[in-house]
Amino acid sequence: MPKEKELVFGHKNPDTDAVSAAIAYSYLQNQLGYNTEAVALGEPNLETKFVYDHFNVKYPRIISAINGEVKKVMLVDHNERQQSVSDIDDVEVTHVVDHHRIANFETSLPLYYRAEPLGCVSTIIWKMYLEEDVEIPGQIAAIMASSIISDTLLLKSPTTTDEDRVALKSLAETAGIDYESYGLEMLKAGTNLDSKSTQELIDMDAKSFDMNGTSVRVAQVNTVDVDDTLKRESDFIKDIKAENADKGYNLFVLLITNILTSDTTGVIIGDTDPIAKFEQALNTKVEDNKAALPGVVSRKKQVVPPLNELF
Amino acid sequence: MPKEKELVFGHKNPDTDAVSAAIAYSYLQNQLGYNTEAVALGEPNLETKFVYDHFNVKYPRIISAINGEVKKVMLVDHNERQQSVSDIDDVEVTHVVDHHRIANFETSLPLYYRAEPLGCVSTIIWKMYLEEDVEIPGQIAAIMASSIISDTLLLKSPTTTDEDRVALKSLAETAGIDYESYGLEMLKAGTNLDSKSTQELIDMDAKSFDMNGTSVRVAQVNTVDVDDTLKRESDFIKDIKAENADKGYNLFVLLITNILTSDTTGVIIGDTDPIAKFEQALNTKVEDNKAALPGVVSRKKQVVPPLNELF
Repeated sequence: MPKEKELVFGHKNPDTDAVSAAIAYSYLQNQLGYNTEAVALGEPNLETKFVYDHFNVKYPRIISAINGEVKKVMLVDHNERQQSVSDIDDVEVTHVVDHHRIANFETSLPLYYRAEPLGCVSTIIWKMYLEEDVEIPGQIAAIMASSIISDTLLLKSPTTTDEDRVALKSLAETAGIDYESYGLEMLKAGTNLDSKSTQELIDMDAKSFDMNGTSVRVAQVNTVDVDDTLKRESDFIKDIKAENADKGYNLFVLLITNILTSDTTGVIIGDTDPIAKFEQALNTKVEDNKAALPGVVSRKKQVVPPLNELF
Repeated sequence: MPKEKELVFGHKNPDTDAVSAAIAYSYLQNQLGYNTEAVALGEPNLETKFVYDHFNVKYPRIISAINGEVKKVMLVDHNERQQSVSDIDDVEVTHVVDHHRIANFETSLPLYYRAEPLGCVSTIIWKMYLEEDVEIPGQIAAIMASSIISDTLLLKSPTTTDEDRVALKSLAETAGIDYESYGLEMLKAGTNLDSKSTQELIDMDAKSFDMNGTSVRVAQVNTVDVDDTLKRESDFIKDIKAENADKGYNLFVLLITNILTSDTTGVIIGDTDPIAKFEQALNTKVEDNKAALPGVVSRKKQVVPPLNELF
């Protein structure tokens, strides 16, 4: 009997890793006998569009809910239900591959769950290909390599581990790319912000967190010139305020990260108490809605954990 | 710099797998450079005592709380916080190896999490030894094989997978035991109930579950003669009622399982509504506090999921 079909997907507001890990994991599971299809929970961002055009890879079908299409799903690059399809509670999660904390996640049945604190989910999936002795096709190796470059900012983010380094070298070789020069080109393609509205920018790579009852939204924008990006500061502030009112966020943190210098300027809007907690957690001062965050490039490693600790 | 010490442990009311998986995983992590000590969250049960005496393995140090001894811990065979040390929220969980559902578990940092829906955690740890190419010492192979025999009732429980079968054969070979004859002897040793009070029996292998606000306790006792065990029925009922009043359980399910015929008789005590839900979930009738559960041997696979579904 053929296996029941399952969908495989990464988080909402997908970045390069969320989509590419879904494709890579779905392909691996197909080889192991599962009947799966990779889908994406949103349009490609600028960087992902560059990657998929560059390697001529078809972007997956986009969905926002399961709507009864399947009964079982596999998650990559996320587990918190607010980052997933809207009706995640109506389906059974059978597999998860992730590199984030575990929270707001619960199953009634035993499942496959593989998390490792590495820089990129594609690194974990690369290890699984090796363990299962499955060959990685060139195009899949290319988008997995791109994911590692994206998540680790070309191996410069503090989330980078030795395993990410080894995986990137191996995948780049399989894909036949010079990852240093390709990587810079790719990261720069992702920072072409002028074509995007401020509303699009604050939503493009944003994640919601329920921190002990406080609703926190953390968005990140990569750039090669923070001052240039901040020319639209008043528009950012207006849009974030509207977003907070509309979605009920108590704290909105927009991280504007310079990928060349590895520094961040935060735009911080929210209620008084969460802002005070943000200042304490990040050891900074919010003035005119802005905070300097030198050396900060990783939301997952340098922003969410200290916030979570305080809330 | 030497690594900071971490404790490794299974769930409260430990069974053979909870203790042996902690020992096996701690040994593996030691080989990989971690500084760990396996501990147990309680005294050995009859079966575990038989196993550790038989192979001359030292039972680990017993703790009930961390009490500031370490900052980081590794969990095996459980993740739900009510099944762990009392002060689990005060420490960082860095690793989990488990074969249960995920619930009531949350971290603020990324971690290693390896869950697979197999019959026994020792089977997963056996796979990890192979992946890491670490040799399994004979004594550790012996207690891992015993764990698989215990969790799968000598490969007869519906939780048994092909991987459990392969792992048991391989581990038995490493340990130099005939797992069929040793397994029967071991399971029978675990059913020597006469030496235990009914109070001890309802607590020996019992787990608590928070099911959407309803506090459910499910205990299991293995026997080779259910009628003989039920000669103490009135004592069981008295002790369970006292336990419910004392601990605030809304539903107490005692599974008396015949390991030779793979059938169970349940002793069910609790509030009216949870009992009605139990009847519906397990498709049975509770009469005189008892319910027939033919073919039921697995709490994890045949009792907890249908209950969880209804609550």
